[in-house]
Amino acid sequence: MRRKLTLKQIAKEMDVSISTVSKALRDSPDIGLDTREKIQAFAKLYNYKPNNIALSLKNRKTKNIGVIIPEIVHHFFTTVVSGVEKVANKRGYNVIVCLSNESFDREVINMEMLASGSIDGFIMSLSKETQQKKDFHHLREAINQGMPLVMFDRVAEEIYCDKVVIDDAQGTYRAVNHLIDTGCKRIALITTTDYVSVGKLRTEGYLNALRDAGMEIDENLIVKIEDTRECDEQIEELFESQTFDAVFGVNEIYAVTAMREAQIRGFKIPEDISVIGFTDGILSKNSFPRMSTINQHGTQMGAIAADMLINKLESVDEDEYYRTEVVKSTLTERESTKKKS
Amino acid sequence: MRRKLTLKQIAKEMDVSISTVSKALRDSPDIGLDTREKIQAFAKLYNYKPNNIALSLKNRKTKNIGVIIPEIVHHFFTTVVSGVEKVANKRGYNVIVCLSNESFDREVINMEMLASGSIDGFIMSLSKETQQKKDFHHLREAINQGMPLVMFDRVAEEIYCDKVVIDDAQGTYRAVNHLIDTGCKRIALITTTDYVSVGKLRTEGYLNALRDAGMEIDENLIVKIEDTRECDEQIEELFESQTFDAVFGVNEIYAVTAMREAQIRGFKIPEDISVIGFTDGILSKNSFPRMSTINQHGTQMGAIAADMLINKLESVDEDEYYRTEVVKSTLTERESTKKKS
Repeated sequence: MRRKLTLKQIAKEMDVSISTVSKALRDSPDIGLDTREKIQAFAKLYNYKPNNIALSLKNRKTKNIGVIIPEIVHHFFTTVVSGVEKVANKRGYNVIVCLSNESFDREVINMEMLASGSIDGFIMSLSKETQQKKDFHHLREAINQGMPLVMFDRVAEEIYCDKVVIDDAQGTYRAVNHLIDTGCKRIALITTTDYVSVGKLRTEGYLNALRDAGMEIDENLIVKIEDTRECDEQIEELFESQTFDAVFGVNEIYAVTAMREAQIRGFKIPEDISVIGFTDGILSKNSFPRMSTINQHGTQMGAIAADMLINKLESVDEDEYYRTEVVKSTLTERESTKKKS
Repeated sequence: MRRKLTLKQIAKEMDVSISTVSKALRDSPDIGLDTREKIQAFAKLYNYKPNNIALSLKNRKTKNIGVIIPEIVHHFFTTVVSGVEKVANKRGYNVIVCLSNESFDREVINMEMLASGSIDGFIMSLSKETQQKKDFHHLREAINQGMPLVMFDRVAEEIYCDKVVIDDAQGTYRAVNHLIDTGCKRIALITTTDYVSVGKLRTEGYLNALRDAGMEIDENLIVKIEDTRECDEQIEELFESQTFDAVFGVNEIYAVTAMREAQIRGFKIPEDISVIGFTDGILSKNSFPRMSTINQHGTQMGAIAADMLINKLESVDEDEYYRTEVVKSTLTERESTKKKS
């Protein structure tokens, strides 16, 4: 059973041309699916090893893209998935979504499962736990296997691959500046713990904006939230213990929760307290008053990530260069901030 | 090449026992992976068809579950996915999510892609277009292949499979009754077009509640929305042309949009206009005032669906009975409705 086989022998055995065998083993659509599958099965049966394994791997197209997101209930990630879908479908690819649920183990399990033949390449955003552990071996393995990877939003500097990020620090700077420009004097920040890369960058943007305006930084006005499900209490505590005339929230849940808390206490928005959030999602659009936000352009980020990945998948050359695409966030002024006078 | 093959012939050709061939074709771990793959490849090459395809398929375990949802930006579907994840992960399964984007074609493409070896079974909710077309051939094909299917929320009566639904009509009846009990006299309904199964059932619940209370049904107070993205205009139009003291929305976007429109026009909630939505999601919890809703228990629905599917996957007998699990919705009273006196 274990005789070593050549392309020529397969061709003879199957009564087809060598070119047909070669194309079939590269899964070329020139060859009918039935013939292709038979030739592939025959080659597998006799342990036929093509000279260029990499080439054969590269040509084993599933036309599926795997997307791994930290959670599905966070509106931003769902908009990114929508953007990926739009471009991928247009270019003939299916999209498979898996969740890490902010867990390192689940991220690893999902990547291994998808990498074992279900997809051609990955688009992903890291789980909180992965960012905390700084263990990226699973990403390196996928890349070493020849599986292209595009990271978005929560990315790892240590990993060489294409990336799509938003200008987190500059976006926040822009938002805080808008609050300063419209007369706010004491601006509270509701942010995440520092190991979440985007939370850290947005905190930096806040600090820089205050410094550049010559305003005092009051640590009592900075709330760092570990678990979003418990943000209500920490925000209530902020209102209870401090006075301020503006709030910047690094995501829309924090911002909308602050807005609620202000309204419960009888503050008028924006007259008494101005509020801006990051991520222009479903909550910002539907709040009352409608919330001014930094638009994170999730759909656009997803579309760019999909184009980057598919371009890499379909490029003829082995491209060794990686790009980081920085999407420029924009300020959407609605009703929760004062107008510039 | 196309001679008809028996187990015995395969065994002879491969120089192994018939039992080894049989086990290999059922993917039994008793047989070494290499031998198993060769026997399977050989069988495929010669178009070997086992007598019991279902059995052989049933034993090819991927430990992956495929979930197909109509859209990812709708909060309810994401809570169902969370529920599926929770149970599936606990029971040792991975979850793969695909979106139909409310399109029939994408639903078919995704099902075919997943059914061809990526997963052991499906959990799905129909796209709007599939409900409109009433073409369910792709579901029948998957079931005929021996691929268990659990439908949730938007289900097809015509398909025999396990189902998880909410008591849509009764839940709505309960909500409208609550509005009547708290003194509301003219109750508007914001619903979907009738071909969306759940929208139709909720509309029925509304009509029954009014009838049972001996209240007049005014067609002018019923708004049917085709495309959620255009609900703003239709709801504005309702407020412009009609007077009423309560609104029931069949999903939380419609309800929260009605609440906004009321507030813009200076109505107090709930004093002037009471509002209840269906689906207790992120918008209901974060609106101001917080919205009273019928809780659709998406996480629980997902958990039940996952348990039903995995039980079927792991059952030894061919179970020919299908169950429909009806989850009982509950009324969550918050601040957008009056208290019973």
